[in-house]
Amino acid sequence: MSAEIGVAMLGYAFMGKAHSRAFREAAALQPPLVPQLVSISGRNAERVEAARSELGWAEATTDWRDQVGDDRVGLFDNGGPNDLHAEPTIGAVRNGKHVLCEKPLGRTAEEAHAIWRAAEEARVVHMCGFNYRFVPAVRLAREILEAGDLGELYHFRARYLQSWGVGAPPSWRFVRESAGSGALGDLGAHIVDLARYLVGEPAEVGAVVKTFVEGHEVDDSFAATVEFANGVAGTLEASRLATGRINQNTFEVNGSRGSLAFDVERLNELQVADGKWYRRVLVTEPEHPFMHFWWPPGHIVGWGDTFTHEVHHLLSAIAGEHGVAPHGATFEDGYRCAEVCDAILRSAETGRRETVDYREVEV
Amino acid sequence: MSAEIGVAMLGYAFMGKAHSRAFREAAALQPPLVPQLVSISGRNAERVEAARSELGWAEATTDWRDQVGDDRVGLFDNGGPNDLHAEPTIGAVRNGKHVLCEKPLGRTAEEAHAIWRAAEEARVVHMCGFNYRFVPAVRLAREILEAGDLGELYHFRARYLQSWGVGAPPSWRFVRESAGSGALGDLGAHIVDLARYLVGEPAEVGAVVKTFVEGHEVDDSFAATVEFANGVAGTLEASRLATGRINQNTFEVNGSRGSLAFDVERLNELQVADGKWYRRVLVTEPEHPFMHFWWPPGHIVGWGDTFTHEVHHLLSAIAGEHGVAPHGATFEDGYRCAEVCDAILRSAETGRRETVDYREVEV
Amino acid sequence: MSAEIGVAMLGYAFMGKAHSRAFREAAALQPPLVPQLVSISGRNAERVEAARSELGWAEATTDWRDQVGDDRVGLFDNGGPNDLHAEPTIGAVRNGKHVLCEKPLGRTAEEAHAIWRAAEEARVVHMCGFNYRFVPAVRLAREILEAGDLGELYHFRARYLQSWGVGAPPSWRFVRESAGSGALGDLGAHIVDLARYLVGEPAEVGAVVKTFVEGHEVDDSFAATVEFANGVAGTLEASRLATGRINQNTFEVNGSRGSLAFDVERLNELQVADGKWYRRVLVTEPEHPFMHFWWPPGHIVGWGDTFTHEVHHLLSAIAGEHGVAPHGATFEDGYRCAEVCDAILRSAETGRRETVDYREVEV
Amino acid sequence: MSAEIGVAMLGYAFMGKAHSRAFREAAALQPPLVPQLVSISGRNAERVEAARSELGWAEATTDWRDQVGDDRVGLFDNGGPNDLHAEPTIGAVRNGKHVLCEKPLGRTAEEAHAIWRAAEEARVVHMCGFNYRFVPAVRLAREILEAGDLGELYHFRARYLQSWGVGAPPSWRFVRESAGSGALGDLGAHIVDLARYLVGEPAEVGAVVKTFVEGHEVDDSFAATVEFANGVAGTLEASRLATGRINQNTFEVNGSRGSLAFDVERLNELQVADGKWYRRVLVTEPEHPFMHFWWPPGHIVGWGDTFTHEVHHLLSAIAGEHGVAPHGATFEDGYRCAEVCDAILRSAETGRRETVDYREVEV
Repeated sequence: MSAEIGVAMLGYAFMGKAHSRAFREAAALQPPLVPQLVSISGRNAERVEAARSELGWAEATTDWRDQVGDDRVGLFDNGGPNDLHAEPTIGAVRNGKHVLCEKPLGRTAEEAHAIWRAAEEARVVHMCGFNYRFVPAVRLAREILEAGDLGELYHFRARYLQSWGVGAPPSWRFVRESAGSGALGDLGAHIVDLARYLVGEPAEVGAVVKTFVEGHEVDDSFAATVEFANGVAGTLEASRLATGRINQNTFEVNGSRGSLAFDVERLNELQVADGKWYRRVLVTEPEHPFMHFWWPPGHIVGWGDTFTHEVHHLLSAIAGEHGVAPHGATFEDGYRCAEVCDAILRSAETGRRETVDYREVEV
Repeated sequence: MSAEIGVAMLGYAFMGKAHSRAFREAAALQPPLVPQLVSISGRNAERVEAARSELGWAEATTDWRDQVGDDRVGLFDNGGPNDLHAEPTIGAVRNGKHVLCEKPLGRTAEEAHAIWRAAEEARVVHMCGFNYRFVPAVRLAREILEAGDLGELYHFRARYLQSWGVGAPPSWRFVRESAGSGALGDLGAHIVDLARYLVGEPAEVGAVVKTFVEGHEVDDSFAATVEFANGVAGTLEASRLATGRINQNTFEVNGSRGSLAFDVERLNELQVADGKWYRRVLVTEPEHPFMHFWWPPGHIVGWGDTFTHEVHHLLSAIAGEHGVAPHGATFEDGYRCAEVCDAILRSAETGRRETVDYREVEV
Repeated sequence: MSAEIGVAMLGYAFMGKAHSRAFREAAALQPPLVPQLVSISGRNAERVEAARSELGWAEATTDWRDQVGDDRVGLFDNGGPNDLHAEPTIGAVRNGKHVLCEKPLGRTAEEAHAIWRAAEEARVVHMCGFNYRFVPAVRLAREILEAGDLGELYHFRARYLQSWGVGAPPSWRFVRESAGSGALGDLGAHIVDLARYLVGEPAEVGAVVKTFVEGHEVDDSFAATVEFANGVAGTLEASRLATGRINQNTFEVNGSRGSLAFDVERLNELQVADGKWYRRVLVTEPEHPFMHFWWPPGHIVGWGDTFTHEVHHLLSAIAGEHGVAPHGATFEDGYRCAEVCDAILRSAETGRRETVDYREVEV
Repeated sequence: MSAEIGVAMLGYAFMGKAHSRAFREAAALQPPLVPQLVSISGRNAERVEAARSELGWAEATTDWRDQVGDDRVGLFDNGGPNDLHAEPTIGAVRNGKHVLCEKPLGRTAEEAHAIWRAAEEARVVHMCGFNYRFVPAVRLAREILEAGDLGELYHFRARYLQSWGVGAPPSWRFVRESAGSGALGDLGAHIVDLARYLVGEPAEVGAVVKTFVEGHEVDDSFAATVEFANGVAGTLEASRLATGRINQNTFEVNGSRGSLAFDVERLNELQVADGKWYRRVLVTEPEHPFMHFWWPPGHIVGWGDTFTHEVHHLLSAIAGEHGVAPHGATFEDGYRCAEVCDAILRSAETGRRETVDYREVEV
C-alpha cells in the first residue's frame, strides 16, 4: 500500500485544469506518494465550487489561508495569477508544506528570491512549474548534452512565438499591474529556463522590448542576444504578434560535433545531428525519457502529459527518491530565470548589454 | 448528480492500459454517465490482479463469464486478443450489456457479422474500437468532407507503415492461428476504416499480400488498389517492414476543389488545400473537434487522448444523446471493414480484382 | 582542342527549350565532344524560325528528313510529339546518327520495340530521355542501392501527382489519337523508369485506370500494385487531378537495413534511413553525383540542370567513354518501360494482375 | 538584331564561375543588350588562362587595368576578393564602364561609400551582387510586402547558418587582413541586404560577435538585435559553426495580417500566411517572378539561375529599361549594408546598441 499525500491547490483556470489532471494521472502511474486532492481555492465562490466538482477536488474554499494551515495538506500547489504567487507560497512553506508554484515564480527577481529563500529556510521540497523540462524530447536533449555528444557548444537560439495578441480584446494580460510583463514573463520565461536547463547560466544579455499595440501597457515582444558563462552565444525571442505561429516554442543548440533542434508544436520530435545531417527522432521509443509510462513506439504523448511527468517527479522528490528535484525546476531555477528576465528589461532601457547577477540564499 | 454505469473489461495489455486510462479521463470530462470500473479479467490470475491494481479496477477475475453475468455491469469492454472477441462479446450482448470491442471485430467477415448480428438482436449500443475516428484532425477532415468543401472526390490513398517486424523475435503475432492475419488485420484494418469513414464504401480491391520474413506465417505487408462505390480510386498499403517508419499512418484525399492530408505521427496537424496550396492547420483551435475538452491553441493532445474521446462518445450514446454512436464506429463498421480485408486476401490469391459484398443484418 | 559533333533537333516546345539549354550548358562543362547546334525542325515555319533564333540553332527547317540526311549531323535529338517519335528516329539511326529520343519512346511497347531494334541494328548510341535518372539525389539513391546498403529490399512505392487537369481547357493531351494515353504515359512512364532504375524489373502489375473528367478520352489517373522479379512489392500511382500537388514525383524504397525517400519538388534532398531514423541529406556535397560541375555545398541545382547532366552523359557515351550510356536510359529502357505501361492498361481492362513480358532484340 | 555589350570580368573562382554562366545564360533569354565575353583577369597567369578556356572568355589577362581601359568593354564585373573591390571598380567607373561588383562592396562602410560615390560621379549603372534579391520566392515576398498584404509589420528575423568552419583547414578566410571579417561580411551581409530589401532601413543594432576557433582572427559568428526605422524589431544571426546546417539562409516577416518565411535550401518555396495558417507556395507558377524565363509549374530553378536573373536585370538597366536597377541592389545598397555591418562590430565592442548612420552622396 503506497503512502498518500494531501494536496491543496490555488487556482482553477488553465493551470488549475492542467495540474488537476496531472495529479489524477500521476496517481495512476505508481508514484511513491499517492496524491489526495484535499481542496481547491479561488476568489469567486461560485466558480471555485464548479471547478472543484469538475476537476475532482474534495473541498472548495475562497481563502488560501485555509489551505496552508490545513493539517491534511502536505503539498501546496500554486497555480494562481502572478500577483498571488509570493504570499500564499511563502505562507505554505512556513507551515511546512512542500510546494509547487507556477512560473514566473515572482513578478521580479527580488520577489522570486524571497520565495526561494523562504522555501530553503523551511527545508521543504520546492518546484517551479517549468513543464517543458518534462517533455520527453527536451529531456532527451538534456541527456545528449550531459553526455557531451555535441562536443564544444557554440550556439543556442530559442524563440517562443504566438499570434493571439493581434486583435485581442482588452485583458488583464496587457495591464502592467496585474500582468507584470507581457510576452517576456509569459513566453520568454519558458525559453530562458530551457536555455539554463540545456546550456548553462546566461551571463550577459542585450535586448529590445517592444509594445506595438495601442493600449497595451506590457511588452508584446522582445528580442535579445545572450552570452552564457561557458561562452555559448545566441538569441532569445518571444512575441504574441507572430501571425502564422500558434505556439512555436523552438530551440536549437549547435556544437562542434552535433546539433539539436526542437519545436513544441511537434512535441514528440527531436531533430538530432550527429555530424553533417539532421535526423528526425520520434521520441517514443521504450528507452526514451518518460516513455516507460506510456505506449509502444510511434504513439505520441500530448502537452498535458508533461504535467503528469512533472507531478510524478515532484512526488518522487518529496518521497526522497532523488534529492530536491534534480530536474526541478526548483525555486532557485525560478529565481535565476527571473534575474535573466530582469536583465532583459534593464538592457532594453539602458541600451547596454547587461550582466546577469545571481544571488545565493544563505540558510 | 450524474448517473453511473458499471464497466467490466476483458484484457490488460496494451489496449487494457489505454482503455483504463480513457475511462478514468472520460470520467473527468462530465460524461452523462460516469463509468465505475467494476472488474477486469484475463487468463493469468497473477497478472490480472497486478493489472487491476495498476489500472484502477475494483475486482479482478480470470473468467469473463463472471463479468457478462454481473448485474452491476452495464458496459462490457473487450480489449482481449482477436480469438477472444466473438464469444465474450456475444455473451455480453445476450445479457443486455452495451459493448465496446477492439478492432478487428472478428477474425473473418463471417465472425464479425455474427457479432454484429448478436448486438443488433440484443438492441444494445455497440462500438468497435477504431480510435483514429476520434483524432481531432481526422474528425475535422470528416467535417470538411461532409460539407462538400473538396468538390467531386477523385482519389484516396492511405498507408500504415511500421518497421518493428524487421528482426523481431518470434511471437504469436506472426502465427496464423493466433493472429489471423499480420499487417492486414493489425494496421490495414485501421486505414480501411478511415477510407470508409472519410470517403465511402470500397466496391472493388486488387491486392498483393507478401510474407518476406522466413518463419512468419502471416502477411508482413500488403498493397492494394481500391475503387469506391462513388467512383473514387486509390491505393491502400500497410507493412511491418518499412525501415525508417515508426507509426506512419497517413492518408490523402484529392477532390476537384481541394485536398486533405494527415499523418498519425503528427497527430494534431491536418494539411488542408482549398485550391492550389496546402496549408498546415494545427487542429487545436477552440472550434476544432474535441478541443473544448482541452487546452488553448497550440497545446497538442496525445494518442492516448483519442481513446478518451472515444469512450466519452460511447457513454453519451448509451445515455441516448446521439442515437447509436453515429461516429461509431459501430459493429456494422467493424463487419464492413472485415469484408474489405477478406476481399484483399481473396484478390491476392485469385489474382483478380475482387468485389466487396456487404451483407445486412435482419432483425 | 575538343572534337565536335553536329546536333539536329526535332521539336521546339517545352522539351525543345530544355534540350537546347542543356546542349549550351553541357558545352561549357568540358564534354569530350562539343555539340554544334546545326538545325532545329518543326511543322510551323514561322514558329520554328523564331525558336531557332531564341534557342540558338544555326538553321531551321520544316522537314526532319533534311536533318536525318545531313552529313554535318552526328546526333539527332527527337523532342517532338509522341506520334513523331518512331519514323524520324528510325530514319536517323538508319543514316548512322546517334539518337536521343524523349519519353515515352513509342506510343505502345510494339512501337518502342521497333525503334529500339532499329537503333541496335544500326549500332549507334541511343538514349531515351528519362531525365530524372540525372537528378543528383536520384543518382545517389542508385549508388546506395547498388552498394547494397539497404539490405534485402521489401517495398517500392512511387507516385507522380499534378493538378493542372482540374478545369483545364480542351487540348490534344486529352485526345486518344494524339496523346496515346494520359497520366500514364506522361507521368507514369517516369516513375516506371525510376522503379526499374532503382529496384529492378516489374514482373506483375494490377491496375485501375480512371477518366474522371467529361470529354477526356485518355486516363486522368491510374493506381497499380507492382511486384518485381526480385520479390519487391509496392504501388505506383499518377494523376493530373491531385489538387494541392503541383509536381509531386516521389518514391520510397524500404529494405531490411535502411530506406530512401525522394520528391522532385525538393530536388536536392534525399531522405536516407540507415537504421531507425530518416536523415535529410542535401545532395550538394562535392562527392555527390554531378556536383563536381557546380557549386559549394548548399547551393542547389535546378530541374533544368538534369538535362545538362543527361546531355553531357550522352556526349561522353558517343565519345566511347562508358560503353552505351550505362545510366542511359537506353532505348531498351524506353521499350521495357512501355511494356509495363501496356501491362497496366491490360490489367485495368481484364481485372487481373498481368505479367509483364519483355522481348529481346536479336541483331 | 540586338545590340551588344562587351564584358570584362575580374576573378575566376566561385563567383567567376557563377557569373560566367549567368552571362551565357542571360544571352539566351533575349536581353536588350547581348553580352560579349571580352576578357577575364586574375593574378595567376596559368589559372586565369585555364579559366578563360573553361568559362568561355575570349581573352585572359593578369592585369585588370587592361580591362578597365579596354574600349571594347562596356561592363566591368568585379568578382575578385574583397581587397580588390575598391581600386579596380573605381578605375572602371572612371573609364565610364558600367559595373557589377560582388558583395561586400567594400571592407568597411568608408570604402564602400567611396566606391558608390565614384560610380555616382561617373553616372554609370552600378549593381552590387546581392543575388538573393533575384530568387523568385524572395521577389515574390517583396511584391507581397510592397502590396501591404501583411498589414502593419512587427518582426523580421533572419539567420544564415553554415557549418564548414568546424575543423576547416587554415585559409585566408580566417585572416583579418585578407578577409576583413568572417561570418559577418560573408553571410551576414546577405541577410542585412534582405532585411533592407524586404523591411526597410535598420536604425539600431545590438550585437555579439564571437570567434570560437583557435587561430581564427575573424568572427566565426554574430548575433544581433535589430530595430528598423519603421519600428519593426527582430534578430539577425550568422555562423560558420552551425553543425547540421549547410546553407540555411532563412528569414521570417510577421505582420498584423500575415507572415512570410523562406529558406535558401528550399529556394523555390515561400511560406505564406494570410491569416492564421502558413501555406507552402511553390514559386514556379507562370505569374511568379522570373518564371516566364523557365518551365511549367513544379519544375524548380537552381541557385545558379539567380545570377542569370541578376545579370539579365543589369543588362536591361544599362539598356535604360528601368532606370538604375530598381531591384539593384545598387552600390548605395552595398554601402548601406556596410554601415549596418560596421554598426554590428561597433556594438559588439562597446556593449551598447549602436545607431546606424547613413551618409548620402552629393554629386
